[in-house]
Amino acid sequence: MSPAEVRALIRKEVITTNTSGMCAGYAQANLIVLPRDLAFDFLLFAQKNPYACPVLEVCEGRYTTEMADGADIARDSPRYRVYEYGEMTGEYRNVEHLWRDDLVSFLIGCSFSFEAELLEAGIPVRQIEEGRNVPMYITNIPCRPAGVFHGNTVVSMRPMTPAQAILAVSITADMPRVHGKPIHFGDPAEIGIADVMKPDFGDAVTIRPGEIPVFWPCGVTPQAALMAAKPPFAITHAPGHMFITDVKNSALKY
Amino acid sequence: MSPAEVRALIRKEVITTNTSGMCAGYAQANLIVLPRDLAFDFLLFAQKNPYACPVLEVCEGRYTTEMADGADIARDSPRYRVYEYGEMTGEYRNVEHLWRDDLVSFLIGCSFSFEAELLEAGIPVRQIEEGRNVPMYITNIPCRPAGVFHGNTVVSMRPMTPAQAILAVSITADMPRVHGKPIHFGDPAEIGIADVMKPDFGDAVTIRPGEIPVFWPCGVTPQAALMAAKPPFAITHAPGHMFITDVKNSALKY
Repeated sequence: MSPAEVRALIRKEVITTNTSGMCAGYAQANLIVLPRDLAFDFLLFAQKNPYACPVLEVCEGRYTTEMADGADIARDSPRYRVYEYGEMTGEYRNVEHLWRDDLVSFLIGCSFSFEAELLEAGIPVRQIEEGRNVPMYITNIPCRPAGVFHGNTVVSMRPMTPAQAILAVSITADMPRVHGKPIHFGDPAEIGIADVMKPDFGDAVTIRPGEIPVFWPCGVTPQAALMAAKPPFAITHAPGHMFITDVKNSALKY
Repeated sequence: MSPAEVRALIRKEVITTNTSGMCAGYAQANLIVLPRDLAFDFLLFAQKNPYACPVLEVCEGRYTTEMADGADIARDSPRYRVYEYGEMTGEYRNVEHLWRDDLVSFLIGCSFSFEAELLEAGIPVRQIEEGRNVPMYITNIPCRPAGVFHGNTVVSMRPMTPAQAILAVSITADMPRVHGKPIHFGDPAEIGIADVMKPDFGDAVTIRPGEIPVFWPCGVTPQAALMAAKPPFAITHAPGHMFITDVKNSALKY
């Protein structure tokens, strides 16, 4: 099925699951929706931290125009979370009833896109092999703050051999709109990670002999900055329940 | 002299000329300063048109923190222009007397940076050879509008052989923060340019037999969008009188 067909089934609430593996080859995006009075600060936070927070589209209305043709931000992700002053106050299949004219939506690039390219190049992606969520860690690398938004960079980790890591750097360096190249490999302590087997988010994965952990900036970074900022109102996608775009992963290269 | 030393002399108004050729190897930037109530629209315009309007830094105060260490936006370019409702109302060596707490400054990447890399690779840059300003043209390619900002893409043109053009595409594709790869080569009419020998801005340059014109998105695009938006107040650098950063051109690669 095409992304438009899948979004139509999500809109009808026929599809309500997470979007993992759907529409292979097409980019899925993180979603953050904020009142307009916070939109400049958030866009500036993204501009200052472009690898952790790569903005694919900013929508000033309810419907997308660039990444998907007329998709409905309020209904086309399968599950949403609503936050008030940093506390989650609800999880919904659509947020039509909460929509307001002053909301600005941010679609943010997701590592699913570069993982597809890694797999294409024959680089195994451990958490996919093991059927888990990618391990994510809060580092000691501060983001550049902007207005109310601040926090440390969150990274995702994939173990691989040095030869695979070299190829992965080369591939992801060409994809800055979906986090780009790694920010570290090797000793986790160097970026403030005490125990690589105890991720702050997601699941631990096996690191085999001869493999090193490779760390990429992660889209949870802006979500963590959002939680720290505690705005009066915000909507995000629920974890794993992404917004599916009409744009192919391979088109997200500069 | 280092960029910091040159900026100190500009600040003292010892250096008052255009910055062409100063601090070889260091990036020079376009400057646009706007009241905060227009800053979101402008940053969004840049986000939607990243090659024409590649933002290097956004400063919410008078002093830079990223591209230059504590440089004074109000004094460290040698010449400024002030616009009110789209009309130029003054040209000044500094704008200290006009500074207001609500101003937000945008440093925008400049083609000087990629021209340095082209020259390094042995690709001649015609307008430098001929001692002229680069020819610039208003195309028929619309920018994605954002708020009050809209207009067509302005391009700069450099004539070269096909072999040079191929190398130039490859080099500039790696420099998206300073306009990136070309958007067209060959027939100027295809992008709405009636006569390549009559540029809308800058000077005509010689196109030799065997050469084709190659067109890059140009930093005049956001300036034209600014003029079209006619905001109550705006400051820009005067043409050629750029803001010199502490960042090397070679560091502007992703």
